[in-house]
Amino acid sequence: MEFDVLVDVRLRGGIADPAGATIERALPALGFDGVSGVSVGKTVRFTITAVDVGEATTLAEDLCASFLTNPVIEDASVSVSPVGDSA
Amino acid sequence: MEFDVLVDVRLRGGIADPAGATIERALPALGFDGVSGVSVGKTVRFTITAVDVGEATTLAEDLCASFLTNPVIEDASVSVSPVGDSA
Repeated sequence: MEFDVLVDVRLRGGIADPAGATIERALPALGFDGVSGVSVGKTVRFTITAVDVGEATTLAEDLCASFLTNPVIEDASVSVSPVGDSA
Repeated sequence: MEFDVLVDVRLRGGIADPAGATIERALPALGFDGVSGVSVGKTVRFTITAVDVGEATTLAEDLCASFLTNPVIEDASVSVSPVGDSA
């Protein structure tokens, strides 16, 4: 059975986010006021083959911890849904 | 009033995704089989001040189209929720 996986990766609190800080600093000069707390993260989407949603989640979390994220500075949340459902 | 905004940016279909392709190619050698269709995107989260959710959404979509994404190659989805709700 196939599952759609969405991994949402964010920097942990307290870790410097230069991309977010640059966006935030630039916005007032570009005419956008009232924007604060900008943070930039990444997403990884893929399809995984597994017998059930539990196995798919375990595989996806393994993948995350091993290669997709740096657990020292990043937090990841994993969502798994059967292919066809909106992810 | 303040709103949490989450902008989810993905490459449009048909646009080359070298980061995703590299991950996908590497996984079998690393012991993960059955993973396909890897794509990498980015997220931008921020807090915006606006009178209501409609104005916040309009501002966030303007921001997206102007600076946060490249509409030629990227699709963005914007979610807005009052500060305090889970985003």
